[in-house]
Amino acid sequence: MNASVSETPEPVVALPDIHAIRAAAARIAGHARVTPVMRSDALDALTGARLHFKCEHLQRGGAFKFRGACNAVWSLREDEVERGVVTHSSGNHGLALALASATRGMQAHIVIPEGAVRSKVEAIEAVGARIHRCAPTQAARDAMAARIRVQTGALLVHPYADTRVIAGQGTLALELLGNTPLLDVLLTPVGGGGLAAGVAIAAHALVPGMAMVAAEPAGADDAARSLAAGRRITDVVPDTCCDGLRATIGAPNLEALQRHRTQVLIVDDAQTIKAMRLLWQHLKQVVEPSSATVLAAVIAYPQVFAGRRIGVVLTGGNIDMDALSWGHAARD
Amino acid sequence: MNASVSETPEPVVALPDIHAIRAAAARIAGHARVTPVMRSDALDALTGARLHFKCEHLQRGGAFKFRGACNAVWSLREDEVERGVVTHSSGNHGLALALASATRGMQAHIVIPEGAVRSKVEAIEAVGARIHRCAPTQAARDAMAARIRVQTGALLVHPYADTRVIAGQGTLALELLGNTPLLDVLLTPVGGGGLAAGVAIAAHALVPGMAMVAAEPAGADDAARSLAAGRRITDVVPDTCCDGLRATIGAPNLEALQRHRTQVLIVDDAQTIKAMRLLWQHLKQVVEPSSATVLAAVIAYPQVFAGRRIGVVLTGGNIDMDALSWGHAARD
Repeated sequence: MNASVSETPEPVVALPDIHAIRAAAARIAGHARVTPVMRSDALDALTGARLHFKCEHLQRGGAFKFRGACNAVWSLREDEVERGVVTHSSGNHGLALALASATRGMQAHIVIPEGAVRSKVEAIEAVGARIHRCAPTQAARDAMAARIRVQTGALLVHPYADTRVIAGQGTLALELLGNTPLLDVLLTPVGGGGLAAGVAIAAHALVPGMAMVAAEPAGADDAARSLAAGRRITDVVPDTCCDGLRATIGAPNLEALQRHRTQVLIVDDAQTIKAMRLLWQHLKQVVEPSSATVLAAVIAYPQVFAGRRIGVVLTGGNIDMDALSWGHAARD
Repeated sequence: MNASVSETPEPVVALPDIHAIRAAAARIAGHARVTPVMRSDALDALTGARLHFKCEHLQRGGAFKFRGACNAVWSLREDEVERGVVTHSSGNHGLALALASATRGMQAHIVIPEGAVRSKVEAIEAVGARIHRCAPTQAARDAMAARIRVQTGALLVHPYADTRVIAGQGTLALELLGNTPLLDVLLTPVGGGGLAAGVAIAAHALVPGMAMVAAEPAGADDAARSLAAGRRITDVVPDTCCDGLRATIGAPNLEALQRHRTQVLIVDDAQTIKAMRLLWQHLKQVVEPSSATVLAAVIAYPQVFAGRRIGVVLTGGNIDMDALSWGHAARD
C-alpha cells in the first residue's frame, strides 16, 4: 500500500500528532463550545449497544467544522492575519471558516458555487465573510480560489487536507474521552476524512486499543474503495443525500485511516434517513443526514457494535428546513 | 374576582407553597433529569431579547410532565402503592405517569380515547402501564377513569388540578433560577395550568418581582378569557395544533395565575409553527408545537419582551414524525 499515490495534485500535508491536537484544544478554547454528550435508553435498547452521542451539531456554526477552522485561523502568525483566508465550500466548512475568521477580526473569502443552499449563503454573509460565486464545478471552484489567493494574498484553509484542520477536529475526541473514558469504539462519518483522521490520532494516543470505525454513504464510498485498493480512489461521482460527505478522501486523511486501522462501513441513504428519524424522535436533536450515517451503521452492523460502548459523533445539524413539510399551518 | 366559581364539578385542590415545591424537588431527584438551559445568539438577535431556554423536551418521557407525575407517585404512602394510579390522558401526562409509576413498581392505568397517536400509546404500553380504551369524549374518559377507581382502588393523578402535580412542575423553576438567576421574565405555555401555576409559585418565592407571562393558543384561549372574566370559562372548544394545550384551565391553576398576576398572551397557530421552525433551525432541538408558543409570543409582543432577560420553558418534544416529510429517501 502506498498512500502517497494520488491522481489529483494536492500539497503534501503532514498529519498532526497528539501534541498538535492538545495545542489546538488550548488554541480554540474560549471560541469553540464544549459540546454535550447525550444518551438514549430507547436507542440503546434498539441497537443492543451503549451509545454516547457527542453533539457537534450544537457546536458554533452547527457542525464540528468550527474546531478545525478555528485552529487554522488562530495558528496564523500575526503578520499573516491581514492577508485573510480563503476556502471553497458551500457547506459547513465555509460557514465555520467565516465564523472563525470573525473571532480574529480577519477577512474570509468563501468561494460558493451557483445553486448553493440560500440559508447557508446568508449565514456566511451575515458573519461578514466575502462571498465569491463561481460555476458549480470543482475546476471552477479551484480556479476561483487560486485567483483570490493571487489577487488578495489570502491563505488557503482546505476543508480537510490540512494539518491544522485535522488537529482541530481531533479536539473533540479529547473532550469525549475526557468525559466518557470507558469506550470500546469510536464512530464517525467519513467524507474528506478530516474528522476521521483527527479523531483516530487523538483517541489512539489516549487509548491505543480503541476500535476506530467510520460510516460512509454507499453513494460516496471512495474511502472504503481507497482502503481496499491501498491507494486513493478519486473517480467516485458522489450520489447521496449526505451533502457533508460528498468530498473525496484526502491523501493525508487516507494515510491516517490506514495507520489507525479505521474500519469503514457502508450505509445506504434509506438506512441513513431512517436513522435520522430515530435521532430526531428519541434524542430530540435536529441532525443532518451526514450525522445519521453513524446510527445507520450501528443498526446495519450489529456484529460490529452490539454489546459495546460506543462514542458516536453527531457531526452537524444544518438542514434545509424548507425540505420538511410543516403540516397545515402557514409558512412564508 | 372569584376564582372559586366553576362550572364543572372538580375536587377542591389547594395550591402548593414553596416548601412543597422544595420537597418535590428532593422527592424527584434521582428520577427526573436536571435539564439543560440553551441559548442562541441568532434567536437573541432576532427577538432583541436575551433568551434562556429551559429544555424540558429533554426530560424523561420527552416533557416536563414527568416532574409532576413523579412527585405525585412518590408522595403516596407505602400502603397506597399497591392500589395503583389512574389518569386519562392520551398525551404527555399519560406517558409521564406510566414512567413515574414504573420507578416505584406501581401499576398505572391510563385511559386513552380511541384515535390517540399510535406512537404515544406504544410508548405507554412499553413501560408496563395498563391501557384502557374509551370513546373520544370527555364524558367517556371521566366515566372510564371513575370505573377504574371503583374497580381497582387506583388513585387519581389529575394532569394539572392536583397539588402534587403543580408542586412537581414548579421544580423546574427552582432549577432554572438556580442556574440562571438574573432573569426579568419567566415565560411558559398555558393549557390546564399545572406548569404555569407551579412555576409562578416557585419563582415568586425566590424573586418576588419577576414578571410571569404565559403564552396561549388563540384556538384554546380559555385562560386569557377566564382571567378577563374573573371566573373560570369552561366552554371554549379547542381548535389548535398545540395538542398539549387543549385542556381547560383548572380551578386552582386559575387561582395561581390570578394571585401571581400572570399575563397571558395569545398567539395563533401560524405564528407558533413559524416559531417551531426557528427553534429547530437555530437551537437544533426537536420541540412540539405547544413548546413553540413561547417563542411565538416573544416575537409577537416585542413591547413585553425586547431588551429583557427571559427564562423560556420548552415544554416537550413529542411530535408525530409521520407528519413530517422525509424527502426522497425511503421510509417504512
